[in-house]
Amino acid sequence: MSASHSSFQKIAIVGSGAVGSYYGVLLARSGKETHFLMRSDLAHVKTHGLEIRSQGESFTLSKPLIHASTNTIGPCDLVIIALKATDNDVLTDLIPPLLGPHTAILTLQNGLGNEAFLASHFGQERILGGLCFVCLNRTAPGLVEHFSQGMIALGEFERPPAERTHRLVADFQNAGINCRLMDDLNLARWRKLVWNVPFNGLAIVGGGVDVSTILNAPSLAHLTRLLMTEIIGIAKQLGHAIPLTFIDQQLEATLGMGPYKPSSLLDFLSGKRVEVEAIWGEALRQGKAANAECRHLEMLYHLLKAQCPAQV
Amino acid sequence: MSASHSSFQKIAIVGSGAVGSYYGVLLARSGKETHFLMRSDLAHVKTHGLEIRSQGESFTLSKPLIHASTNTIGPCDLVIIALKATDNDVLTDLIPPLLGPHTAILTLQNGLGNEAFLASHFGQERILGGLCFVCLNRTAPGLVEHFSQGMIALGEFERPPAERTHRLVADFQNAGINCRLMDDLNLARWRKLVWNVPFNGLAIVGGGVDVSTILNAPSLAHLTRLLMTEIIGIAKQLGHAIPLTFIDQQLEATLGMGPYKPSSLLDFLSGKRVEVEAIWGEALRQGKAANAECRHLEMLYHLLKAQCPAQV
Repeated sequence: MSASHSSFQKIAIVGSGAVGSYYGVLLARSGKETHFLMRSDLAHVKTHGLEIRSQGESFTLSKPLIHASTNTIGPCDLVIIALKATDNDVLTDLIPPLLGPHTAILTLQNGLGNEAFLASHFGQERILGGLCFVCLNRTAPGLVEHFSQGMIALGEFERPPAERTHRLVADFQNAGINCRLMDDLNLARWRKLVWNVPFNGLAIVGGGVDVSTILNAPSLAHLTRLLMTEIIGIAKQLGHAIPLTFIDQQLEATLGMGPYKPSSLLDFLSGKRVEVEAIWGEALRQGKAANAECRHLEMLYHLLKAQCPAQV
Repeated sequence: MSASHSSFQKIAIVGSGAVGSYYGVLLARSGKETHFLMRSDLAHVKTHGLEIRSQGESFTLSKPLIHASTNTIGPCDLVIIALKATDNDVLTDLIPPLLGPHTAILTLQNGLGNEAFLASHFGQERILGGLCFVCLNRTAPGLVEHFSQGMIALGEFERPPAERTHRLVADFQNAGINCRLMDDLNLARWRKLVWNVPFNGLAIVGGGVDVSTILNAPSLAHLTRLLMTEIIGIAKQLGHAIPLTFIDQQLEATLGMGPYKPSSLLDFLSGKRVEVEAIWGEALRQGKAANAECRHLEMLYHLLKAQCPAQV
């Protein structure tokens, strides 16, 4: 295992929901010193460990390094942010104890604006972003269910990949994670929004429906295409070229997900805060600022705002 | 009472929901021979009569002329259509027994396309249209609650008002109904859509909310303005001039309605069919045919189609 030759030996996972727990457990299993910041699940995980269930198999990290505060973790080589974007305001307090002179910060959060937020507080040179193309649900305390293989894509914020980016990708790959390097993080974020805007949004305003239902309801499938087309148009105005053929590819890939409930729908159904601003709000604001056509997105955003109050 | 001098002495009410029952009871009370076609409420009304409750007062028509079939009614001077537009397909069977050589047909149905449908089957010269600006709910069998004064506007289909139109307005006024003559029925229908499209639609896709909630939720109030602006733009493309100042007038008038639930929401909540095509579908089709901007309406229409299946 080459993990010990990497500079990213000590890792903090800030936000141990589905995404943080899943990647944290895999990195820990590969030999990384992985610390988990936890809130609601802390007591349960202390006793029962962290379990990942995936396609009939199960793996439990029985003694994870868990913490109620980042003060007890101390400076790390890598900080992985997997909190919801709606909780970004707490990061200015949580992150400083984790930072040494060369600590990198990788955000795996959804939507737009998270890297810029972190850069403004902790310095642009620290910041990397990752996109998780994976179907994960945290179905109970300390339990994450993994539904499809998935892939993670990593890139630098507003810079091309550097030596450390390659090392980070290698670390993820050594942990058994399907991982790719991104040359252009912003382009990748907009490509991901082509999926997230319609599916996460219509799942909620369509009345609490899974992606399979969206694909099979002619009206929702039609709106999915309209929204995807609009997002591609906004991205184009912003300088990110996404071919329209991407729409059919995405729809076909979604067929393979079965009755998957997007994370925003799960948040909505369980009364948690939905990342309305990071996903739809920021896309709309950037689209309007670029004079792109975004009326479908505008309707969806305001319907989501109306239905997803600032729940806690 | 001048009713007996009018040619509209024998009247059939086809569809005895809130609108049909309300106007039918008032016309009967004024001395008109008013026949009600009923389905679900027939047995109840036979025993208990038809009751209208309005602002603390109640009026019951204890022995209305009720029928399970139009065959037992026979030819009338005036046929008032108050069925939902989703039931239009049954009208081709229901109406013929009611027609004599001079029978007029007045549709009080919501949305677009109803006059044209009736004209295509029974002759354009018979057809009049009416718009009901009134808050009515059928809250139980044989019981209609009337929430605000309201007004009915009557006009000829694709013609200016004629002598019979004036007589009809007089008959309604003699029945104590606030009634006006319309010079341009199509323009009036589009003006009504400026209200119906946002309020009836957002009440459903906003999560089952009344008009007061829509006005008080910033996102839904914003969408209301966007949709109203779009409908006025579509109407303009179609040659119907509605000033943008109409929006503020409508919003202000809606404030006075309190927590009113639009009829489409009541239909939706009780599992009945919603007039998605007559209100949103036909507006969208006419807007697209006229190359008007209608993306907000397009989103709303497809979300409604997805949430309002063809229930019975």
